[in-house]
Amino acid sequence: MTRTIWWEDNQVKMIDQRILPLVFKIVSYDRYEDVAAAITDMVVRGAPAIGAAGGFGMALAALQSPATDRDSLLVDLAQAKAVLDAARPTAVNLSWATVRITGIASRSHVPGTYEVPGTSDIRSSIIIEAQRIADEDVEINRRMGAFGAAIVPDRANILTHCNAGSLATVDYGTTLGVVRAAVEAGKQVHVWADETRPRLQGARLTAWELMQDRIPMTLIADNAAGMLMRLGKVDLVLFGADRVAANGDVANKIGSYKLAVIARENGVPCYSVVPTPTIDLSLAHGDLIPIEERSAR
Amino acid sequence: MTRTIWWEDNQVKMIDQRILPLVFKIVSYDRYEDVAAAITDMVVRGAPAIGAAGGFGMALAALQSPATDRDSLLVDLAQAKAVLDAARPTAVNLSWATVRITGIASRSHVPGTYEVPGTSDIRSSIIIEAQRIADEDVEINRRMGAFGAAIVPDRANILTHCNAGSLATVDYGTTLGVVRAAVEAGKQVHVWADETRPRLQGARLTAWELMQDRIPMTLIADNAAGMLMRLGKVDLVLFGADRVAANGDVANKIGSYKLAVIARENGVPCYSVVPTPTIDLSLAHGDLIPIEERSAR
Repeated sequence: MTRTIWWEDNQVKMIDQRILPLVFKIVSYDRYEDVAAAITDMVVRGAPAIGAAGGFGMALAALQSPATDRDSLLVDLAQAKAVLDAARPTAVNLSWATVRITGIASRSHVPGTYEVPGTSDIRSSIIIEAQRIADEDVEINRRMGAFGAAIVPDRANILTHCNAGSLATVDYGTTLGVVRAAVEAGKQVHVWADETRPRLQGARLTAWELMQDRIPMTLIADNAAGMLMRLGKVDLVLFGADRVAANGDVANKIGSYKLAVIARENGVPCYSVVPTPTIDLSLAHGDLIPIEERSAR
Repeated sequence: MTRTIWWEDNQVKMIDQRILPLVFKIVSYDRYEDVAAAITDMVVRGAPAIGAAGGFGMALAALQSPATDRDSLLVDLAQAKAVLDAARPTAVNLSWATVRITGIASRSHVPGTYEVPGTSDIRSSIIIEAQRIADEDVEINRRMGAFGAAIVPDRANILTHCNAGSLATVDYGTTLGVVRAAVEAGKQVHVWADETRPRLQGARLTAWELMQDRIPMTLIADNAAGMLMRLGKVDLVLFGADRVAANGDVANKIGSYKLAVIARENGVPCYSVVPTPTIDLSLAHGDLIPIEERSAR
């Protein structure tokens, strides 16, 4: 299957996630404003995928800009950054990506030389950086999946919420990356997928992904998760995170708090599967952060 | 507004709850088998309403039966009881009602006399008893509502699950009866109504009822209840019960367990509003049973 989002022929292409699971369609954009709208309308969603969209959107902005000097190009890029950053503020990955791009764009010298970058140098380096943001995400997910597979028992019943799978990332997925890696490691896995009202990312996206990969899956109403845990039918709760605060608090799709409390109530391990990327890939690592309920209100 | 279900012209009439909130339609039945199907298909639902339907179904069976002697009539009634009881086993009110009817039907003498009841005596007493079952439910709900209104603070934000309102009963409602009584007592009340997947009784029925009565209401995805409680926006959680066990365990719509645990976690009072009716109305009382989490698995 294709990546969730990619760069091709100077266009951004992505799966239209609004119409899954009934229709699988690729859409193409050549204007950053349209990529921003796509983020807002949830054509693309999921924090890492939104980040990649932000990076590619900046690459489009670099090509759209008529600027012939560096300063004018940087002004156009700053405007594009503001539009893209505002598209969906919850996922911090978006501003991470646009900051990376503007950082690259505003380098004072071509690396390793005394040369001041010309506009075409800047444009190419932006496209290269956007591609790196996307490729790193896949690399991180595969690495994190391998870490996470180690904590998945054999014959595991895993409860998931929302969609932190391939469709939420550039490819492979965070939470579902752990599931895929466990399956690749030869473990038997069954997923209880919360349908995840109101937008049904579990029903439309997670269920679809797992069925594509033929991973055993049962779609459930969100209300059923408590009973399943109480009955001992859940071995592990996994979900992603839009954002992790410095104190370890996790922000994720509505309903995650309920799951974490019920999991603790029933002694079921609950993890938020989230990478903490840095600009230097060699420092990037995947962290599995156990959810512990915080009493401070 | 009409009652949820009633007897008129030797027919059972009821609101078709499958098509609310978009269409308000009354359907009529003159065969007990059709009443049983209506219960199974959720044309009528909610434990007390199902009970009344069972009673009225038995009244139809009494009229449908061609029997001209008491024993044959009792055989036909026993068959109808079996069909009705099987229509929806979770709500114990159904068998309560059919047992009351067969109890009345099998009385050895007309009360206060030496006469053995003839078939027309039995038929009329069944119809009268079915009407009493319905009328008692309304009386119980009004009484229980008055009890419950006392524990509703002024300016209360009440979280509800499923539909334990007028539509779940013959009229007035159990949980929503408490809400109505609080409003009638002059308290300001706002209801957070869980939409209640999978069958959306909250969205289709509770929201509709509260809007009919102009009681302030916000419909929420079930996943949002945890966050609302955490943020201190819920003063009271109220829901009904299909069944209460002798040890106080409550069986209710899926998702209730999650709500009870989250309510306890956040110090929010949580009540199951359920009457414990007996055959003699003078002994009937409404109990508000606080939900305490039971650790025994």
